[in-house]
Amino acid sequence: MNIGLDMMGGDLAPLEPIRGLSTYLNDSSQSASISLFGDQNQIKALLKLHSIPSDRIRVIDAPQVIGMHEHPTKALREKQRSSIAVGFQMLANNEIDAFISAGNTGAMMVGALFSIKAIPGVQRPTISTIIPKENGKTGLLLDVGLNADCKPENLNQFAVLGSLYAQHILGISNPRSGLMNIGEEEGKGNLLAQAAYPLLKENQLLNFVGNIEGRDIFFDKADVMVCDGFAGNIILKMAESIYEITQNKGIQHRYFDLFNFEIYGGTPILGVAKPVIIGHGISHGTAFKNMLSLAEKMITTEFLASMRNSFVAGSTF
Amino acid sequence: MNIGLDMMGGDLAPLEPIRGLSTYLNDSSQSASISLFGDQNQIKALLKLHSIPSDRIRVIDAPQVIGMHEHPTKALREKQRSSIAVGFQMLANNEIDAFISAGNTGAMMVGALFSIKAIPGVQRPTISTIIPKENGKTGLLLDVGLNADCKPENLNQFAVLGSLYAQHILGISNPRSGLMNIGEEEGKGNLLAQAAYPLLKENQLLNFVGNIEGRDIFFDKADVMVCDGFAGNIILKMAESIYEITQNKGIQHRYFDLFNFEIYGGTPILGVAKPVIIGHGISHGTAFKNMLSLAEKMITTEFLASMRNSFVAGSTF
Repeated sequence: MNIGLDMMGGDLAPLEPIRGLSTYLNDSSQSASISLFGDQNQIKALLKLHSIPSDRIRVIDAPQVIGMHEHPTKALREKQRSSIAVGFQMLANNEIDAFISAGNTGAMMVGALFSIKAIPGVQRPTISTIIPKENGKTGLLLDVGLNADCKPENLNQFAVLGSLYAQHILGISNPRSGLMNIGEEEGKGNLLAQAAYPLLKENQLLNFVGNIEGRDIFFDKADVMVCDGFAGNIILKMAESIYEITQNKGIQHRYFDLFNFEIYGGTPILGVAKPVIIGHGISHGTAFKNMLSLAEKMITTEFLASMRNSFVAGSTF
Repeated sequence: MNIGLDMMGGDLAPLEPIRGLSTYLNDSSQSASISLFGDQNQIKALLKLHSIPSDRIRVIDAPQVIGMHEHPTKALREKQRSSIAVGFQMLANNEIDAFISAGNTGAMMVGALFSIKAIPGVQRPTISTIIPKENGKTGLLLDVGLNADCKPENLNQFAVLGSLYAQHILGISNPRSGLMNIGEEEGKGNLLAQAAYPLLKENQLLNFVGNIEGRDIFFDKADVMVCDGFAGNIILKMAESIYEITQNKGIQHRYFDLFNFEIYGGTPILGVAKPVIIGHGISHGTAFKNMLSLAEKMITTEFLASMRNSFVAGSTF
């Protein structure tokens, strides 16, 4: 088991990736070997400086860097020796089992969708976010921005992908799926939600609990909350801003500390055939450590197999 | 100037409407006469009990009550002597100048749209919410649920309606309009936002500042924030739940107290020809007082005239 880690990705690279790597390697419950992508001289110097043992480490020289604001497809095409480009090449060639970067999000999306590709039957891969529930439990919201416009069947598939993730990765048995909407009863909502409702209701792979509203997001009404990427992105960024406001105003409470979404590490792209994890631009060491642990979990659990088994090419549920 | 107030509307009626009325009448800066709709015996007894002077009061007997969960059109048709039905009849006949109710929201919508009608040129009336900005200023978000599916021109019109409201009622000069979106640059977002952007940008009635994101809602980036009623309703209800969470967890801060949306009183239906204000179901006395003051402001300012002047029947901007 070998996890690829982009050492040049994120605003705080390479120092914070190194810190996360060090913590991961010192965690006796974690066992993957790690391939580090970036400028090899710089990385080797840092490994030495931080006294990181070399036995589970491989350094892959990828001296080019894709900037945070570069055009994704153009940058990937022109910078074939960048950490993200080389990472996806090796992931596609089975030389690594997962790839993690906190770098250019668009380039990570493009790499995942074009180098790794969607699982047959998955119409649209998706990204999600952890939602801290006010009772201490953990929810999942998706899509949070990859798919701004969705068809009803997309939401139906997101619910399945999210449920499998909740089950295998978050450890929630028989997760409850809810449809983000603006009313409780069936038939409420916009045209998309109205059309998606019966699909989710009839989907045998789901434990569908009906519509949920904005007021239910942080309450324990559904584990997996499904919406298009427009609504989901607004929800996520609004929640992030609540954290910022509490910080600015000196409001200290451990619940709102959970609105610091950086701590969750990163979001996997759900629906692609291999583990690809995109980190927050300002990821710190803990985030990188969490992304490495998440990648290991995605490799060692039944999550990927269950996704493959749940979808069949060309069919809808 | 005569404002109609539904005494039977809201979970806490008629006691809280009476309390709000009493406060309003004791406020020397307020001068409207008030027509009270409801069971006249009950209302008269309450007026006496609370020693409310009768000189600016008229009681209109409307003994039927439309319940909070009744079907709006059916209830309005069958209960012609209900407070909401009688209120809209008198508003349509110019016997009152504004109508306020915290009762059945759907019945209020139906009454406003069918008895009072949209201003010529307004394609879709809309409802908004105050957004407390973290720097102490006040923003406006619309639509918050009346129009779940929108066309680009609807958003353009909401921006105009919101700007006029911000200017005349909230006292914000040259209010900045922002388009709720999931990216900063023009061209980002879902199909609706992509198509709405150039309309808002070219609209001479607007001070358009571009896209805003979920993280900007509580920050002072735009005064008037425009989106479809699906996104807006989720934002509003999520913000309401933040207040609920702070209450549950004993987090006291005067900023989050502003997320108690009940204090704002109610939302006017923007784009209809006369002031119609819908209160929160659990409105207390302060909310009713605030709704009476808002109705008076809507009658006495240039707000309604400015709406009529900004729209022309059959045209788009």
